[in-house]
Amino acid sequence: MEKRKNRWQEFLHNESLKRKIYDVIFESDTPAGKLFDICLMLAIVMSILLVVIESTPYLPASIKPYLMVLEYVFTFFFTMEYLLRLYCSPNPKKYACSFFGIVDLLATLPFYISWLFGPARYLMIVRTFRLIRVFRVFKLFNFLSEGNLLLRSLVYSSKKLIVFFLFVVIMVISLGTLMYMAEGQEPGTDFVDIPTSIYWAVVTMTTVGYGDITPITGMGRFISAIVMLLGYTIIAVPTGIVSATMVREQERESHRHCPNCGRSGHPEKAVYCQYCGAELEIQSPD
Amino acid sequence: MEKRKNRWQEFLHNESLKRKIYDVIFESDTPAGKLFDICLMLAIVMSILLVVIESTPYLPASIKPYLMVLEYVFTFFFTMEYLLRLYCSPNPKKYACSFFGIVDLLATLPFYISWLFGPARYLMIVRTFRLIRVFRVFKLFNFLSEGNLLLRSLVYSSKKLIVFFLFVVIMVISLGTLMYMAEGQEPGTDFVDIPTSIYWAVVTMTTVGYGDITPITGMGRFISAIVMLLGYTIIAVPTGIVSATMVREQERESHRHCPNCGRSGHPEKAVYCQYCGAELEIQSPD
Amino acid sequence: MEKRKNRWQEFLHNESLKRKIYDVIFESDTPAGKLFDICLMLAIVMSILLVVIESTPYLPASIKPYLMVLEYVFTFFFTMEYLLRLYCSPNPKKYACSFFGIVDLLATLPFYISWLFGPARYLMIVRTFRLIRVFRVFKLFNFLSEGNLLLRSLVYSSKKLIVFFLFVVIMVISLGTLMYMAEGQEPGTDFVDIPTSIYWAVVTMTTVGYGDITPITGMGRFISAIVMLLGYTIIAVPTGIVSATMVREQERESHRHCPNCGRSGHPEKAVYCQYCGAELEIQSPD
Amino acid sequence: MEKRKNRWQEFLHNESLKRKIYDVIFESDTPAGKLFDICLMLAIVMSILLVVIESTPYLPASIKPYLMVLEYVFTFFFTMEYLLRLYCSPNPKKYACSFFGIVDLLATLPFYISWLFGPARYLMIVRTFRLIRVFRVFKLFNFLSEGNLLLRSLVYSSKKLIVFFLFVVIMVISLGTLMYMAEGQEPGTDFVDIPTSIYWAVVTMTTVGYGDITPITGMGRFISAIVMLLGYTIIAVPTGIVSATMVREQERESHRHCPNCGRSGHPEKAVYCQYCGAELEIQSPD
Repeated sequence: MEKRKNRWQEFLHNESLKRKIYDVIFESDTPAGKLFDICLMLAIVMSILLVVIESTPYLPASIKPYLMVLEYVFTFFFTMEYLLRLYCSPNPKKYACSFFGIVDLLATLPFYISWLFGPARYLMIVRTFRLIRVFRVFKLFNFLSEGNLLLRSLVYSSKKLIVFFLFVVIMVISLGTLMYMAEGQEPGTDFVDIPTSIYWAVVTMTTVGYGDITPITGMGRFISAIVMLLGYTIIAVPTGIVSATMVREQERESHRHCPNCGRSGHPEKAVYCQYCGAELEIQSPD
Repeated sequence: MEKRKNRWQEFLHNESLKRKIYDVIFESDTPAGKLFDICLMLAIVMSILLVVIESTPYLPASIKPYLMVLEYVFTFFFTMEYLLRLYCSPNPKKYACSFFGIVDLLATLPFYISWLFGPARYLMIVRTFRLIRVFRVFKLFNFLSEGNLLLRSLVYSSKKLIVFFLFVVIMVISLGTLMYMAEGQEPGTDFVDIPTSIYWAVVTMTTVGYGDITPITGMGRFISAIVMLLGYTIIAVPTGIVSATMVREQERESHRHCPNCGRSGHPEKAVYCQYCGAELEIQSPD
Repeated sequence: MEKRKNRWQEFLHNESLKRKIYDVIFESDTPAGKLFDICLMLAIVMSILLVVIESTPYLPASIKPYLMVLEYVFTFFFTMEYLLRLYCSPNPKKYACSFFGIVDLLATLPFYISWLFGPARYLMIVRTFRLIRVFRVFKLFNFLSEGNLLLRSLVYSSKKLIVFFLFVVIMVISLGTLMYMAEGQEPGTDFVDIPTSIYWAVVTMTTVGYGDITPITGMGRFISAIVMLLGYTIIAVPTGIVSATMVREQERESHRHCPNCGRSGHPEKAVYCQYCGAELEIQSPD
Repeated sequence: MEKRKNRWQEFLHNESLKRKIYDVIFESDTPAGKLFDICLMLAIVMSILLVVIESTPYLPASIKPYLMVLEYVFTFFFTMEYLLRLYCSPNPKKYACSFFGIVDLLATLPFYISWLFGPARYLMIVRTFRLIRVFRVFKLFNFLSEGNLLLRSLVYSSKKLIVFFLFVVIMVISLGTLMYMAEGQEPGTDFVDIPTSIYWAVVTMTTVGYGDITPITGMGRFISAIVMLLGYTIIAVPTGIVSATMVREQERESHRHCPNCGRSGHPEKAVYCQYCGAELEIQSPD
């Protein structure tokens, strides 16, 4: 018993083994690491397809057990992978709290939860998020930095977007209720209550327009036309916000570096470094 | 009688009482003021939910009286609040004419009007606009300034947007009539008259596309395709307007002037003027 | 007879009468001119409403004759107005060929044509375009210049927009045919022939989405999803074109004037006039 | 036999004949070349119309043989043209691998393939792409350079767009599955399986909104509203990407460098450098 515990302790602190596993699982430069990453990608895609296929009613009953087994296999594989990542990571806590750590955990959990609650199994679809790794695997670092710029633009725009959304929520509630007042008493109306009318207002204002709920009276159609033109205009607002932020971010990125202090962010036409006052090089025409 | 009138006069000019109430109702820095504001927010949200829920036909009849009582309570609370605001405001007239003053009044009026006209009760939904206070309550001044930028961009763009809308109205009337001429005589057509056709033109041009009115002839579909491509392109115009205004506003905001040569165009974090090398004033963090 | 001819000649060259009529019809500064313009606007709006109302099938038969009379009156008024404009204009030919001259003529013609061909009467809707005068009437010159900026932006973007549209036409034909190949043989399909499929491709790509023609097979839905995502992305192209043009136009407009040669168009940071080389004034911070 | 081979050899190396044919087929400056190009354009448009018309079920059976003959004629013409182009091109290999070479080949192939597989005939629609030649025929070189700017903007934006699309794919799979979990068990639901739900998510998020699949429960409608607002916002992202790229490309195009101080940023019409006052080179009108 004592010996077994020792062996366990030894395993937990076997740094060379950890190193080897780390190279395979976390790195993608070595052949083994690359192979592992590609297998992982395939496993993720297949396990997503599995969840999707399983839901179709046309599936012949005879295939179901095989799919079940495959699901067990994939989940076992992902669980082992998660445990190994925890084991070989130099800082397991940090990994567990990182974005990928949480996604990796969420990718295995739904299966175990589904033993208790049936439909939870579909939550396995969270595995999709693991596909973001594809950028790391194929060394698409440039793409990641582009994604970063996108994300940064969205974050910088977020305050404006939140104000915009509060405004949209107020509009949608008011216009939905207005429409209920205009059409709600009509026989054969689709606007049976205010929640339905608010749902209609969202569908219309975002220009989705299912057509499952449509006005039938002249008054209702007139209000609808106003709502549509309103939605048509305010669709310009988030676009304007994001465009303006991207134009700014782009400008900031393309700027020059100071030969003295090395800091970037100088506009095309600057003559002196704005941080240390040193003269900047004349930009050669590109 | 005289005494009672005096007491009333006294109450109306009791400055210390006014001050105390003002601190609770208008300020949100003191604990009492903050508590009041949060209660107010909750009351607003609940009274909106009340209006929404009341409209659903699935509501069991036994609950209705309770909801009725709640509505009385909320309206009484909002009415009292409005009167107190008028009472303790240093300049009641100015408050009554301000945006929030009007919204506060409108939030209580529909209830009283509904004693005369039934459906007016749903106008209580105007209470939604009181939610804009949320920014003040949670000290989201930054957000307000963002909202300000949004609003300013829209105001600066408004002339262009109005011209654009007159153009859209002319297009919609013309294209709707054109479509009526093309499809109106067809048996089984959806384009029964010109107002309906104009409504269709709005639905199509804004890319909402309910599908309750659709062309069935080849000619009609051809015109529709033109209308759609037109709508698809002119959706670019308001977006372009707002984007261009936002890019300009953003630039204007981020610019500083050099104390030596007076030239502007320095980025937010610049320390030295990029034209003459003079030191710039440190921009206070906003 | 000779005398009558002379009177006619006299009338045609009565410059002081022409001047008076010109002041009323073309100018909008004098009280008479303003009154005339406002009456004209009202007449235009009412005659449009007339056309719209006449088309509705719910109209009681007893009212129809009255509407008919009104239509005669309006058309007589517009015809007289057009002839007077031709008469009093200092350069009748130029007026007749101007945008407003053509619209004014088109506003009266359909009525006379409809004596020959029935449905042509609805072409009277072209009167809508006369509403553009509203800017002149209410002295909204600023708005006209804004409209000018809008128009200029569209004209400058037009080459790019034409290239874009040829691309869209090619896409729509190709994708429509592809869809016909994928779904056309299916029993109960909506894709009965290639023109219908092309119409569907336009409806889908512009994100209108009526839903009158929808895919039912897995393959068809997959292609649809691709078409939608494509449409979703290329909607960005015209918006980008117009936005970029507007940003540039805006910049060009807001630039400075040279104290020497008076020409504008200098960027904010310019030191010397780019036309005559004179030193520019330092722009005061606004 | 030998003689015939010689004649063939002679034909293959007859440079003056090649030159003549080249002038007609490839050039569009000579009258013959222009005529040929216009005939070609007409043939392309007519052959596309042919494919489109042939698919309609309303076509009387008596016309079909004539259309068949026309199709043979056009395909023979295009095949001959392709062979002649190969023959007279100074560098046949380069032509065969160029964009137009491949399109020209693809324009003839489907006909021959359709002798083996029926529906492949519709692939002839690829002829649409030959219409791009229209720019060359009508000397719209300016338009081509505009198209180039468009293409370049898209290429420069492509990395960001790819990252954006991976994000959209992940969102669509996740939200589709979420919706299946919310509505899939409901009786009479449209969300019969996960692929259908993912298709719905694409339809909704791109704001197409057919309405063939719509939520019926309150929960489902709430999730839908979230998906719509999400789609409404992220529609801003590709637009922002393309707008920002176009603003930058536009700026880059309009800039010139000073021959004295080397600084860029001079507007198109500038005569003197705005920094050192030196004369700028006159930009040749393009």
